[in-house]
Amino acid sequence: MPRKMTLAAFSHPVRIYWEDTDAGGLVYYANYLKFFERARSEWLRALGFGQQRLRDEQGVMIVVADTSVRYLQPARLDDELDVTVALSAAARATLTLTQSALRGATLLADSRITLACVAAASLRPRRLPRAILDALASPTGRP
Amino acid sequence: MPRKMTLAAFSHPVRIYWEDTDAGGLVYYANYLKFFERARSEWLRALGFGQQRLRDEQGVMIVVADTSVRYLQPARLDDELDVTVALSAAARATLTLTQSALRGATLLADSRITLACVAAASLRPRRLPRAILDALASPTGRP
Amino acid sequence: MPRKMTLAAFSHPVRIYWEDTDAGGLVYYANYLKFFERARSEWLRALGFGQQRLRDEQGVMIVVADTSVRYLQPARLDDELDVTVALSAAARATLTLTQSALRGATLLADSRITLACVAAASLRPRRLPRAILDALASPTGRP
Amino acid sequence: MPRKMTLAAFSHPVRIYWEDTDAGGLVYYANYLKFFERARSEWLRALGFGQQRLRDEQGVMIVVADTSVRYLQPARLDDELDVTVALSAAARATLTLTQSALRGATLLADSRITLACVAAASLRPRRLPRAILDALASPTGRP
Repeated sequence: MPRKMTLAAFSHPVRIYWEDTDAGGLVYYANYLKFFERARSEWLRALGFGQQRLRDEQGVMIVVADTSVRYLQPARLDDELDVTVALSAAARATLTLTQSALRGATLLADSRITLACVAAASLRPRRLPRAILDALASPTGRP
Repeated sequence: MPRKMTLAAFSHPVRIYWEDTDAGGLVYYANYLKFFERARSEWLRALGFGQQRLRDEQGVMIVVADTSVRYLQPARLDDELDVTVALSAAARATLTLTQSALRGATLLADSRITLACVAAASLRPRRLPRAILDALASPTGRP
Repeated sequence: MPRKMTLAAFSHPVRIYWEDTDAGGLVYYANYLKFFERARSEWLRALGFGQQRLRDEQGVMIVVADTSVRYLQPARLDDELDVTVALSAAARATLTLTQSALRGATLLADSRITLACVAAASLRPRRLPRAILDALASPTGRP
Repeated sequence: MPRKMTLAAFSHPVRIYWEDTDAGGLVYYANYLKFFERARSEWLRALGFGQQRLRDEQGVMIVVADTSVRYLQPARLDDELDVTVALSAAARATLTLTQSALRGATLLADSRITLACVAAASLRPRRLPRAILDALASPTGRP
């Protein structure tokens, strides 16, 4: 009987500072993409992968190919958010994630983000490192 | 015979500076949303609407409700991009735009952006100011 | 016998993400001011003061009047920095801080930052709230 | 009789967008360093030097070693600023500039910025390219 992929959603806290807000009194919309990227970086790190090392040792970078974001409720100065990462689909050279920003139980923004693995030098598509795919397929998220 | 909405695509130049790039050597993905927003602001200004004035005089802000962006080719330091704005649909309280970033004839990123008009104080949906809808419906993009 | 001001240096961790770097491969110089501001916000919070509350309840904002920053060593993607805050001088309407960014024992950047208390509406100078000055003068940094 | 260095101050326009402001309703203090850097990049370009080319052809980068900024008056959404660049001193491996941000005749911020020329690979100090020093010493700012 096949094991199901059971990697639980990963969550990373993000505090809202002045730099994140705009003159509307709310968090500027582009900054959610920064928060999503921070959470993805921590998710990869928790799986055992630093991105500087991926580049130095394997010559690959993980870049963003596509984003879809819905802005549902605003965040404000001093808010503390939880930013989640969940894997939706993994292919040879791409990963699709679902990411959300929440304040307590309130969903502020959600997204679907497609990542692509590319050669750092040429930017051409490359297979995702086997170790990453193995870590993602493991029930504990650890190789 | 009814006049068709013929507002030509608006274009705004954006130069790439160090602030826009990241250690991958490319423009950071969230920054395209800044470029799209700059072009939208200039498009509104060209239609006759400053956003500070909209807020001061009519008590409304135009906020982003939804974004879909595809990243096709990277931009780099010193590049000069053209960022376009074209209206796809206008409703009572929302506008849907198609925006692209190009370097010469090369399409770098394209997007569909939904904007919503809200009361600046309560953030509740508000009708778009009549003058904006009139300007958008005019063949010249001028009231 | 007068009590000396003995508030120990406050430290706040900052992880370096893609958003912080530029195409030179290093952290972009303006972003150290963001890190310094995050640490100051956490320092004020540790003293018991949220800035949104200061504004809502007392009608004041703390703004930056002057900065001097020396950039000594670069930071890179995935680095984890410690950003410190130490009070140098407190006057009726201004605070002068010394702030540094370190990676382990390596000093990357140091600064002297002058903050001013202003009325949120008029931006005119205002006395620092008594509670803040009391907290800063307390040996524990607590009122 | 020696020619005096007569390079007139260079000026670059900067429009204020939502991305530049914060929830205080004003331009966020770190963003003036972005504006100063944009103006420096355009000043170098006007002298004939693109920074990507400097790096590709000569293997050098111009980095910031020291900044001193005074914040005098705030800027707001939709403002159009002029950001100036004037050379104060040139040495073998460093340039010192005076840069200001103005709205019309109102001085908003001024600064003294020290730049250093470094090898892109090692980050060690390198002489400024002769062509840059020649261009700076020319009365027209052109080699």
